[in-house]
Amino acid sequence: MLTNVEHIGIAVKDITASNELFSKLLNVAPYKSEQVESEGVTTSFFKVNATKIELLEATSPDSAIARFIEKKGEGIHHIAFEVEDIYAEMKRLESEGFILLNTEPKIGADNKLVCFLHPKSSNGVLVELCQERKI
Amino acid sequence: MLTNVEHIGIAVKDITASNELFSKLLNVAPYKSEQVESEGVTTSFFKVNATKIELLEATSPDSAIARFIEKKGEGIHHIAFEVEDIYAEMKRLESEGFILLNTEPKIGADNKLVCFLHPKSSNGVLVELCQERKI
Repeated sequence: MLTNVEHIGIAVKDITASNELFSKLLNVAPYKSEQVESEGVTTSFFKVNATKIELLEATSPDSAIARFIEKKGEGIHHIAFEVEDIYAEMKRLESEGFILLNTEPKIGADNKLVCFLHPKSSNGVLVELCQERKI
Repeated sequence: MLTNVEHIGIAVKDITASNELFSKLLNVAPYKSEQVESEGVTTSFFKVNATKIELLEATSPDSAIARFIEKKGEGIHHIAFEVEDIYAEMKRLESEGFILLNTEPKIGADNKLVCFLHPKSSNGVLVELCQERKI
């Protein structure tokens, strides 16, 4: 089950400037910022009801965010859906013909296990599945 | 106040094929379909908790959705935020430097008053404000 739009990821060039812009847009300040070394990004999070807006700035020219901005410019990068059992969802979606970008869940921002689906199997939409990690 | 991510709009070429794809992805069927003549689109809606996924197929080559797909391909088109008072939010956001694409709210899909913000004033993100119409 995909139970919620957990967050929407937005690729930005300058997270300081974008934090200011989104604070004005959403009329609320970001509630946290986090580096994700493995993805080469700095992130910040805003909360709007049950959904987060996640800004992503590349910290390395090799990161997926840097490549996205180079190709398409700043903008909406992915939609993340909360799932109850990421292993079961990965299996279900693969059997439905979706292409998984990782075969095992990996550790993402915000204490989550995550898996991405290739946009070419989902109408050009980069889809993330995420599940809260139990520590 | 932007109180909720009301929906995420996704531009698609063939809404029949995409309805099938998103039914598999979300594991739920679309709960309604609607033509919006003024925008030149056919839409369908899926529900995931408090947020809807809206698929948009152009019905005319002049529609914004046809132009978007021609330029960028299929994918995420806009984020719509629910507001309590669209007139007040339009005024607030204009005073904060955001560019409104319409000076008065217009009637959108799903019985809503809507206003769009120009992506160039909001980090490449096409933002929609929407408020349920009271009839």
